[in-house]
Amino acid sequence: MAAEIVNPRSDNGADDGAQNEFFDPAFALHRGGKMEIRATVPVQDRDDLSLAYTPGVAKVCSAIAERPELVHDYTWKSQVVAVVTDGSAVLGLGDIGPEASLPVMEGKAILFKQFGGVDAVPIALDCREVDEIVETVARLAPSFGGINLEDISAPRCFEVERRLQERLDIPVFHDDQHGTAVVTLAALRNAARLTDRTLGELRAVISGAGAAGVAIARILVEAGIGDVAVCDRKGIVSPDREDLTEVKRELAGFTNKAGLSGTLETALDGADVFIGVSGGTVPEPAVARMAKNALIFAMANPTPEIHPDVAHKYAAVVATGRSDYPNQINNVLAFPGIFAGALQVRASRITEGMKLAAAEALAAVVADELSAECVIPSPFDERVAPAVTAAVAAAARAEGVARS
Amino acid sequence: MAAEIVNPRSDNGADDGAQNEFFDPAFALHRGGKMEIRATVPVQDRDDLSLAYTPGVAKVCSAIAERPELVHDYTWKSQVVAVVTDGSAVLGLGDIGPEASLPVMEGKAILFKQFGGVDAVPIALDCREVDEIVETVARLAPSFGGINLEDISAPRCFEVERRLQERLDIPVFHDDQHGTAVVTLAALRNAARLTDRTLGELRAVISGAGAAGVAIARILVEAGIGDVAVCDRKGIVSPDREDLTEVKRELAGFTNKAGLSGTLETALDGADVFIGVSGGTVPEPAVARMAKNALIFAMANPTPEIHPDVAHKYAAVVATGRSDYPNQINNVLAFPGIFAGALQVRASRITEGMKLAAAEALAAVVADELSAECVIPSPFDERVAPAVTAAVAAAARAEGVARS
Repeated sequence: MAAEIVNPRSDNGADDGAQNEFFDPAFALHRGGKMEIRATVPVQDRDDLSLAYTPGVAKVCSAIAERPELVHDYTWKSQVVAVVTDGSAVLGLGDIGPEASLPVMEGKAILFKQFGGVDAVPIALDCREVDEIVETVARLAPSFGGINLEDISAPRCFEVERRLQERLDIPVFHDDQHGTAVVTLAALRNAARLTDRTLGELRAVISGAGAAGVAIARILVEAGIGDVAVCDRKGIVSPDREDLTEVKRELAGFTNKAGLSGTLETALDGADVFIGVSGGTVPEPAVARMAKNALIFAMANPTPEIHPDVAHKYAAVVATGRSDYPNQINNVLAFPGIFAGALQVRASRITEGMKLAAAEALAAVVADELSAECVIPSPFDERVAPAVTAAVAAAARAEGVARS
Repeated sequence: MAAEIVNPRSDNGADDGAQNEFFDPAFALHRGGKMEIRATVPVQDRDDLSLAYTPGVAKVCSAIAERPELVHDYTWKSQVVAVVTDGSAVLGLGDIGPEASLPVMEGKAILFKQFGGVDAVPIALDCREVDEIVETVARLAPSFGGINLEDISAPRCFEVERRLQERLDIPVFHDDQHGTAVVTLAALRNAARLTDRTLGELRAVISGAGAAGVAIARILVEAGIGDVAVCDRKGIVSPDREDLTEVKRELAGFTNKAGLSGTLETALDGADVFIGVSGGTVPEPAVARMAKNALIFAMANPTPEIHPDVAHKYAAVVATGRSDYPNQINNVLAFPGIFAGALQVRASRITEGMKLAAAEALAAVVADELSAECVIPSPFDERVAPAVTAAVAAAARAEGVARS
């Protein structure tokens, strides 16, 4: 096959110097990238070409020009998501720029495929202004069935997402916000159930008011949490503070019904739930003052805000972001199924109801096997993606955003 | 595998109405699109994930942030080309917009893979201004090793290509121009050889002054053609005309040494070569007045400017754009190998020398089997892509634009 002979992947290695320098399994694995394009139709002879390309393709183009909705049937648009970043908030590394973020975006793309059957293309943008990002993504949107925003720093990420979703009729989803929020809610639902409580009986404290913290606060309120206070580096986000950004002012308006002000430690006093998405650390005495049967989700990577050994002294359920402890809060439990469900019914957006449905479905997967070590499924649990996909598709229909 | 279970491709069919409506093999083949993403690394268990995604991926990102050139080694950037269009000049269909152009772009993408081993992603843009297209493509360029412009109407295509190549350090290549030009030159070299002439002895006439016509004129002049006149709908492009666009004025400056003016028929009188990229028709009496041993390349699709049966009455060699006649001038003979060669050496651009080298290599493939029915290889000749790839890579090194 011609492709085999000239594939640049096979003979385009870096010099040996680089190879020796990075004698590390992660570098070896990443050589040449982690993904490729494959044709799903034959292109072996003239007959194949005359169907897949000219002259056959012209009929398909003409049909779409006449009936635009046919683009979903006769192209890969409704199977493919753009994974868009500007490289400004990548993992724990921060602002490393578009090129250096590509390994993460490729990783995300192959997770989309492996766990959701969704094709995904990394698009790392060389621009930073909200206007520029919005305009650029809007212009390339005709090629894609959905936009997954990734690793764009707060507070720009909020405005980018809002403005893009207003403008486009395909789902726009910032995974650092909503993926994390959906999985956290699912785990919290099960942890509450395990300790015989409803969400309405719980008072939660979130450490971190970035993309994840804001989205978790929102989804907990929507799901009916008793109360939730969000803390940033300066303490509890409350209306009396004068240093709040627009997003945090909004947050202060719908969280913290108790009207607390002060430090994270103050908020934790008697709280039922701790959710860490900050990367800071919480001193043990503050953990000790939480309520009985506390639920501790210390999700910072690689160092949880509260070490699991410490957390277990005081908590009924402990979750982290790490794969080497039980109860890993991992976005891969959510985004593949959420997009697969949305694409399946050609949803025009991903509504709050679809996210809540995703969390319900995710929680339900382990409903019959709940334990302190199992409030959330493993990322490799094969029941997860089909359950989330079906729930999201059904919710999209129920909410009137489905188009098939 | 989870991907199998929830793959939206399998259960996202259109309603039966649409299926019956388009009971045609081209539509059947296009259902669900023609391409997909595949992981090239395993993502089956926790160990796989910890290398391909967090935490392992962070080391790779950090290395690229420190040494930007490593992006070529550890991502798919140097394997992947964006196939960019605005849908303004698609096949013979014209301006059908970005969505309706996607089947062609997907077709192009799978040809890139099949014939050159190059991954390619369709990017159909929802914008039309030159500034907008240039700005958008420049912003998404960090994710790609090359930009293949496709089906963008003249004269905007010339400025888009020029400005993007000035701005980017990856190859920018408008295939409608240069792919066609390279294959035409290769066929013309062999046709001249077959009839015992050099290019310098030939006077050519090109019918059509769009993207392909302009690029063919340029490459013929660079390759040393005796003379070439280009005709648009109003006749021969010559300095005395006052209706010329900027591009045509430039064209008038370096073509038509004979100083002809008037109609296509005037130009054809005694000409050695006819190259049709116009879609018009040439009356037989004008063909009859061409020189002895004429070479007729009537490349309009599906209707050649001169029917092959008519052309054969007067010509020593006849080529068309159709696969059902001998000597098909098909871009797939050029673009896969040109990009494969450029990517292999991480060329910063595709120079004139690289295009000429591609044409030489392409012509040489059938040098030992030349006949009037074989002045250019078949698109399925497996010798083509490796030969073009090697020649283009070598030329890039010779011209100082290679970076590996």
